Amino acid sequence: MDRKQPDIDRVFHALGDPTRRAILERLSNGPMSVSHLAEPFEVTLAAVVQHLQVLEDGGLVQAEKGGRVRTCRIEPAGLAVAKQWLDDRRNLWERGFDRLGELLSEPEELR
Amino acid sequence: MDRKQPDIDRVFHALGDPTRRAILERLSNGPMSVSHLAEPFEVTLAAVVQHLQVLEDGGLVQAEKGGRVRTCRIEPAGLAVAKQWLDDRRNLWERGFDRLGELLSEPEELR
Repeated sequence: MDRKQPDIDRVFHALGDPTRRAILERLSNGPMSVSHLAEPFEVTLAAVVQHLQVLEDGGLVQAEKGGRVRTCRIEPAGLAVAKQWLDDRRNLWERGFDRLGELLSEPEELR
Repeated sequence: MDRKQPDIDRVFHALGDPTRRAILERLSNGPMSVSHLAEPFEVTLAAVVQHLQVLEDGGLVQAEKGGRVRTCRIEPAGLAVAKQWLDDRRNLWERGFDRLGELLSEPEELR
C-alpha cells in the first residue's frame, strides 16, 4: 500500500469543512460503501465523492474498489499529522504562558 | 474577559491556512505586537490583520490594545476544541479498526 506522509496543509484544509468532518464522523463507526456513506447527507452523491477526494488527498480516508462497490474507511495518518501539529503548538504555548506569567509578575517599571 | 466556546467550524477553518498556522507557530514563542508578528511574512500588514481576525474568531488568538500597540497572544481554547474533536474521532476509529480486524479474520463466506 502506498502511504506517504500526509501534507499538513491538505489535512487541515480537509478538516475545515463541516460536511467533510461529518463524513469522518460517520466513517468513525466503521468502513462503508460510498452510497451508504452518502445517505444522510443533503448534498448530491457527486458532492460527497468530491469531499471524499479531498479527504483522501489529506490522508484522512482510504477508498478501495471491490467489484462495483467503492468502500471508504478512516485512514489515521492524517489525524496523526493534525494531532502532532496541535501537540507541538500546545507544548510551546504552555512554555509561552509560563514566560507571560513571569513577565506579569515583574514590577511594571521593569517590563 | 469574554470567552465563549469556540465554534469548531471556525477553528478548523482558521487552521486550514498555512499563513495562519505560521502565525500561530510564531505566537507559540510568546505574545507580541501585530507589527512585530508581521515582520517575517511576505504579505501586507493588512493581510496579517485579516488572518488574525480569523484566528480570533476561531478562538485561537487573543488581541489586546495597550496604548497604540495591539498585542497578540495564543488563546488555547480553540486548540482544545480541535484536539478534542480529533481525540473523539480517534477513539471511535480505533474501535472501528478493532471491528474491521474481527471482520477480516472471519471466513470469507461469512462476510
